[in-house]
Amino acid sequence: MQPLRIGIAGLGTVARGVLGLFAASAGHLERQAGRPLKLVRVASRTPRPEADLAGAEFSTDLGTLLHDDVDVVVELIGGEDRAARLVRDAISCGQSVVTANKAIIARFGDELLAGAAKQGVGLGFEAAVAGGIPIIGSLTRGLAASRVRTVAGIINGTSNYILTAMAEQGSTFADALAAAQSLGYAEADPTFDVEGIDAAHKLSILAALAFDVGFGMDGVFTEGIAGVTAEDIGYAAELGYGIKHLGIARRSDNGIEARVHPTLVPEHGMLAQVRGVMNAVLIESDAAGASLFHGAGAGAGPTASSVVSDLIAIARGEALKYRAGGGERQMLPMSAVQSAFYLRIPARDAPGVFGKVANILGANDISIEGAVQRERAIRINGDGSRSSWVPIVILTDSVREAVMDAAIAAVQAMPEVVGNIKCMRVEHFD
Amino acid sequence: MQPLRIGIAGLGTVARGVLGLFAASAGHLERQAGRPLKLVRVASRTPRPEADLAGAEFSTDLGTLLHDDVDVVVELIGGEDRAARLVRDAISCGQSVVTANKAIIARFGDELLAGAAKQGVGLGFEAAVAGGIPIIGSLTRGLAASRVRTVAGIINGTSNYILTAMAEQGSTFADALAAAQSLGYAEADPTFDVEGIDAAHKLSILAALAFDVGFGMDGVFTEGIAGVTAEDIGYAAELGYGIKHLGIARRSDNGIEARVHPTLVPEHGMLAQVRGVMNAVLIESDAAGASLFHGAGAGAGPTASSVVSDLIAIARGEALKYRAGGGERQMLPMSAVQSAFYLRIPARDAPGVFGKVANILGANDISIEGAVQRERAIRINGDGSRSSWVPIVILTDSVREAVMDAAIAAVQAMPEVVGNIKCMRVEHFD
Repeated sequence: MQPLRIGIAGLGTVARGVLGLFAASAGHLERQAGRPLKLVRVASRTPRPEADLAGAEFSTDLGTLLHDDVDVVVELIGGEDRAARLVRDAISCGQSVVTANKAIIARFGDELLAGAAKQGVGLGFEAAVAGGIPIIGSLTRGLAASRVRTVAGIINGTSNYILTAMAEQGSTFADALAAAQSLGYAEADPTFDVEGIDAAHKLSILAALAFDVGFGMDGVFTEGIAGVTAEDIGYAAELGYGIKHLGIARRSDNGIEARVHPTLVPEHGMLAQVRGVMNAVLIESDAAGASLFHGAGAGAGPTASSVVSDLIAIARGEALKYRAGGGERQMLPMSAVQSAFYLRIPARDAPGVFGKVANILGANDISIEGAVQRERAIRINGDGSRSSWVPIVILTDSVREAVMDAAIAAVQAMPEVVGNIKCMRVEHFD
Repeated sequence: MQPLRIGIAGLGTVARGVLGLFAASAGHLERQAGRPLKLVRVASRTPRPEADLAGAEFSTDLGTLLHDDVDVVVELIGGEDRAARLVRDAISCGQSVVTANKAIIARFGDELLAGAAKQGVGLGFEAAVAGGIPIIGSLTRGLAASRVRTVAGIINGTSNYILTAMAEQGSTFADALAAAQSLGYAEADPTFDVEGIDAAHKLSILAALAFDVGFGMDGVFTEGIAGVTAEDIGYAAELGYGIKHLGIARRSDNGIEARVHPTLVPEHGMLAQVRGVMNAVLIESDAAGASLFHGAGAGAGPTASSVVSDLIAIARGEALKYRAGGGERQMLPMSAVQSAFYLRIPARDAPGVFGKVANILGANDISIEGAVQRERAIRINGDGSRSSWVPIVILTDSVREAVMDAAIAAVQAMPEVVGNIKCMRVEHFD
């Protein structure tokens, strides 16, 4: 049979993973695809003479990939503008595209999918979310019959590595981040990972596929892990919870919500077991119930595995056509989102303080589900004097965020409260 | 667009699940499929007047499904001979087939897939393994690029329910089985589940897809859970392991192995966290690493979800064509399989007994990785006398099964060994 002729843009880690997979598994890939996968062109700004291009023609000009001897362009240059332009151009030329680029799919998915549909070509992005986990295929094919209620994922390995090190080794955030950087799990500038932007891109893609809300970053609430402290991890553990950085998208009676933030999850649930740089995505759907997909979220091998699985699908003649969003994108504002809460309230050690807090919560119809009032702490004040205070830690039942915000403001205003209240969301999945 | 015209064989639990899904989610399913899924015929030996057939024509004659107004026959009658005949007939008539029947795919998969290929029709069986978990699609599409080394699955919910109840509630095997039966998790005759036959069918399908060894039950070693005791669960826990009923298929240097048996797995690994009737499949592959798929393994909703996801794929024009085995089916005999072992040796409490056991293992090049020698037990002999004995519990490193068998025979022959040695395999996954 005719080979599928492939052009690769980029020669970074993932591209070299793809080249390595071609070199190591050509026979396996041809058997799977039903025909040879033939690398005909590679383009990259930075030549890498040491890379084995399997006889493909190399150029520093991305435009060479738009040649009609290329059936599929594999976009692995990263970034946004140049990558999006290449993908648009390839689609316009009638080429199928496979990309690992979460940012361009999250931002321009509707436009790119509409273009691909118009041209009758495929656009595959299995590698854009959770590296080696086939979550795009599972969501759009395997679970296609079961209406999704919730997607909840640990979809940034760097953040999970840091939280795991803090929980298991007692590391500080700074030390855990430094360790992640020295192991190559975090970039020199870790902003994208630790501030949740990377996870928000991935969540936005999952939400678009699960709920038909269209692609885009509007209305995706994003909070990173920098505010998680060892103290919170300790209290959470006492209450029977682990702290994970989750991306959550949910269809509720009020609308579709999408949010990325540190979350308390029950310590015996599957999500709490996800350690180190591993990723996992939990999908709750009407017919299939709770399904969890766990695996490597990044790295050359796993990401290349997903890139090449998309190439195999194209070689087999499968569609790789995902619906672009139909209706208006209208995400639920955070103020309307419901969840349970963890509150840590630094308060002066005076009689009746806990009762006052409980009264304020009760007045807002917020029930207390659990509490820790552990030890007395001593604070050294600015003037050198000391005062005695206790951290009051409370777990509430599920409540609308606007209501919780109001209650927290009222508690914060209590004269006995001596510092900022720490607040994190708590989720109980099936 | 033209509707996909569907005929369903059977009106049991899964069939009613499919009817329920059609009724509850028609709009969702049509959006996913790109055209309506139209139920035109239902056939079942036992009419169920209460079932909502959505206007489909009903007959007690399965042959009515072979009518040319049916594009896809959904085989949900179960059993083997009649079901296989219906599937063969439908394929011969040029109809695609979707089935949840693991037994006929495990036994006749090669023949049925060859027939489907010849006729150019699809044969979908996502529902045959692990109910609502899209494991067939993940293995054959999402992970298509990554050569599989190991498949290890908790693929029988009944067995996992029983082992979970024994481990967490201290139930006996008999009590846990009775509870499973009263909850509807186990049949009145539980043979298929507790003896591992159901798991062996499913494992055989996964092995055929992962390793191209062809379908069939030859060479699939099968051992159920009836021999697992509370005592073993206790010792395993002391050593840091849980006991799970696993189906394991592996490509090793020596060949392909497929085996179903109780297995000690590290208590902190993901497989050990799989509780109750849930299923999970771990796939270790060269490029993607370790991927775990966790979800509902049975039940009307999850199984219907997988059945209808296959229908959606057919409606979308996707292939659903799986390769039938190419080469000769040659499975590794158990004697050549490598694994670590757990041994429980009931021995008289005499000096030097542990040393003698260790010497015999050492003489067979078997290293001891861990041991428990807990308490002295008193045995009341047949003549009313009492003797003191100790259970010696040993964890070995990895060894060929034939070597372990010889070593166990030698230990069993020691005069100090007062009862049958209990032996279970131990596996450490990534």
